[in-house]
Amino acid sequence: MKLEGKVLIAQGGGPTAVINQSLVGIILEARRYPQITKIYGALNGVSGIVDERFVDLTQETERNLEEIANTPSSALGSTRDKPDEAYCKQMFEVMRAHDIRYFFYIGGNDSSDTVRIVSEEAKKVGYDFRTMHIPKTIDNDLMGNDHTPGYGSAARFVTQCFMGANLDNRALKGVYIGVVMGRHAGFLTAASAMAQRFPDDGPHLIYLPERPFHMSQFLSDVKNVYDKYGRCVIAASEGVQDENGQPIMIKYANKVERDAYGNVQLSGSGILGDILATYIKNKFHIKRVRADTFGYLQRSFLGSVSDTDRAEAREVGEKAAQYAILHDMDGSITIQRVGDYAVDYRLTDIGQIAALTRCMPDAFINEEANHVTEAFRSYARPLLGSNMPIAGRLRAPMVKKLVR
Amino acid sequence: MKLEGKVLIAQGGGPTAVINQSLVGIILEARRYPQITKIYGALNGVSGIVDERFVDLTQETERNLEEIANTPSSALGSTRDKPDEAYCKQMFEVMRAHDIRYFFYIGGNDSSDTVRIVSEEAKKVGYDFRTMHIPKTIDNDLMGNDHTPGYGSAARFVTQCFMGANLDNRALKGVYIGVVMGRHAGFLTAASAMAQRFPDDGPHLIYLPERPFHMSQFLSDVKNVYDKYGRCVIAASEGVQDENGQPIMIKYANKVERDAYGNVQLSGSGILGDILATYIKNKFHIKRVRADTFGYLQRSFLGSVSDTDRAEAREVGEKAAQYAILHDMDGSITIQRVGDYAVDYRLTDIGQIAALTRCMPDAFINEEANHVTEAFRSYARPLLGSNMPIAGRLRAPMVKKLVR
Repeated sequence: MKLEGKVLIAQGGGPTAVINQSLVGIILEARRYPQITKIYGALNGVSGIVDERFVDLTQETERNLEEIANTPSSALGSTRDKPDEAYCKQMFEVMRAHDIRYFFYIGGNDSSDTVRIVSEEAKKVGYDFRTMHIPKTIDNDLMGNDHTPGYGSAARFVTQCFMGANLDNRALKGVYIGVVMGRHAGFLTAASAMAQRFPDDGPHLIYLPERPFHMSQFLSDVKNVYDKYGRCVIAASEGVQDENGQPIMIKYANKVERDAYGNVQLSGSGILGDILATYIKNKFHIKRVRADTFGYLQRSFLGSVSDTDRAEAREVGEKAAQYAILHDMDGSITIQRVGDYAVDYRLTDIGQIAALTRCMPDAFINEEANHVTEAFRSYARPLLGSNMPIAGRLRAPMVKKLVR
Repeated sequence: MKLEGKVLIAQGGGPTAVINQSLVGIILEARRYPQITKIYGALNGVSGIVDERFVDLTQETERNLEEIANTPSSALGSTRDKPDEAYCKQMFEVMRAHDIRYFFYIGGNDSSDTVRIVSEEAKKVGYDFRTMHIPKTIDNDLMGNDHTPGYGSAARFVTQCFMGANLDNRALKGVYIGVVMGRHAGFLTAASAMAQRFPDDGPHLIYLPERPFHMSQFLSDVKNVYDKYGRCVIAASEGVQDENGQPIMIKYANKVERDAYGNVQLSGSGILGDILATYIKNKFHIKRVRADTFGYLQRSFLGSVSDTDRAEAREVGEKAAQYAILHDMDGSITIQRVGDYAVDYRLTDIGQIAALTRCMPDAFINEEANHVTEAFRSYARPLLGSNMPIAGRLRAPMVKKLVR
């Protein structure tokens, strides 16, 4: 009665700081069931399935698995491949040959779409097996989830970046622009707001892809802040776009790449920061205008992990194994917020997740479209985890002038 | 007999993660001496002295000082001003009016030069006071020091960046270039080597300003690594230059700024990374070539501090106060390595430090000029501090192919 066979786990899309927690959560939970004959890992996501590149995770030690759980970036390797029907047929040929009956794919919305196609293909050919999508994405853009594993740690990193950038900008005044990852969803850029402690702390301005970006309004915002504080710290999403949906970096520059999904390749380039810095310099003749593009560090930096995120990433893996093996069900594990702060996990139909993008709700963005609201702060605070470093400042009074 | 009067502390140049440890080290030590009537801080370095913008640090609480000590970036604010004789005369007018008898300036080699000029100016006008330079710089380029406060923490950050970048590059293969701060000295870029744990870990190639950079040799190095591992992680100093001393980013691009010291402004721009990535793409038609410029995060990121660096930064401040107040001496505090690992502090004549740059010794750079030596690793290891995160990897054996 119980479906006996092998487990296959794969990881897809961009790595996160806690994606291996989910991997290890699945492995350790799956080990408890006698009907699981072996636990395999596919190298480099679905491409490792068609190429039949599997490792036998049954032979891993628990200590090493825990070390891997605490290591960022997909331990099995990843892929950007998006399987079509032919690709899926190849996958089945391989999976059937190995008696794989449980397929777990850890990934974002592109990966969940892969799971959906694979599951349908399985039904078509009458192959009895369970498919599970386990969420991960630093973008926090999966439907049906309060938030996604990987976001909390990336948000913590971005917060730490802006805490430091704000202090640097206070010490040597000027304008600082930090460009944050996020093609369509502004959650990660919005996390920069968590860096603010004192009323004059930056980021003073936050620009998200959810609101049209107008260069003239941007420049006017910067002037207001600069006039008030003599400095300005700006967080801008790499995906900021105009009212027609055209990315600002494309509108003002020309060369971009496209990856296999047709997504515009925005990361790893300083173009947007340079554009914004140049416009500010030219308009206001402020000497010290600097831009950083945080790039791949946001998803891979070793040493900025939210303990909340770490725990939840582990649990979504465990829950996926339980739903598939114990309950014989298919779907995507989602995180639901059930308290302040508490979560529970739900099995959700994959059709509600696959290939869809969740954006920042209106309640999280201020009216001027240049910062976040208190509602966003309340939402984000528990996700960053405990023991966030604190930025102190002097309270010493000014000394009376004697000379002039 | 004891020189009675006020202490004035200022911070200059680029902030570091531990510069406020030195500030607090001076304050808490100076508080112990009855001849110290007040402890002032000058806002924004020497510019706060000529403008008479002082805060009274005597009124700070110890708890708040400890919070500030653990906060990166100059708490008093910084400056890029380089005083000339006229500037110094103004400084004296102000300092004499406030009965300042002890001047502590925390900064790099430009700041030490300021201390030297100020001290000479003081002697000229017969003003009796003590001047102390306290070292700080993430570049690690001060003469007379085994290493400088600020370097260990920045090196730790760079190491953590490359640990993560290496994992990301393993998961999604291609070429990754990380551009690291350092105009003339390659110490910070070299720290990337500390990210290597397994023999095939990146960075596979490291390029320093101390060795001429040849594009053809670079491309050939990249090809060798890529052929061997199917991927390549590169650490490049922003200051890499050709055999005539011309920076590569200027040779291949055109627009750069110059700051008040005449230094070429290299940070905060992705130009060098873009140049190197473009050459690799065009030559080898590798699809996935990515470049990040780590930028200001290297000196300001809140949450990557070496405990060794933190302790030493505190002690150089304390020792400076002791040499000046207890021993009535002038100079620059330097760090000497006296054991494995142990340090001691020495008072050094400022003329041996001021406006000079220390570069990587030959023994730290490999013959091929594309990586570091074991000697560098031994040198750097204790500076990064304890509890460095570890990057684990799977040891699971490959499964035998059944299909093909």
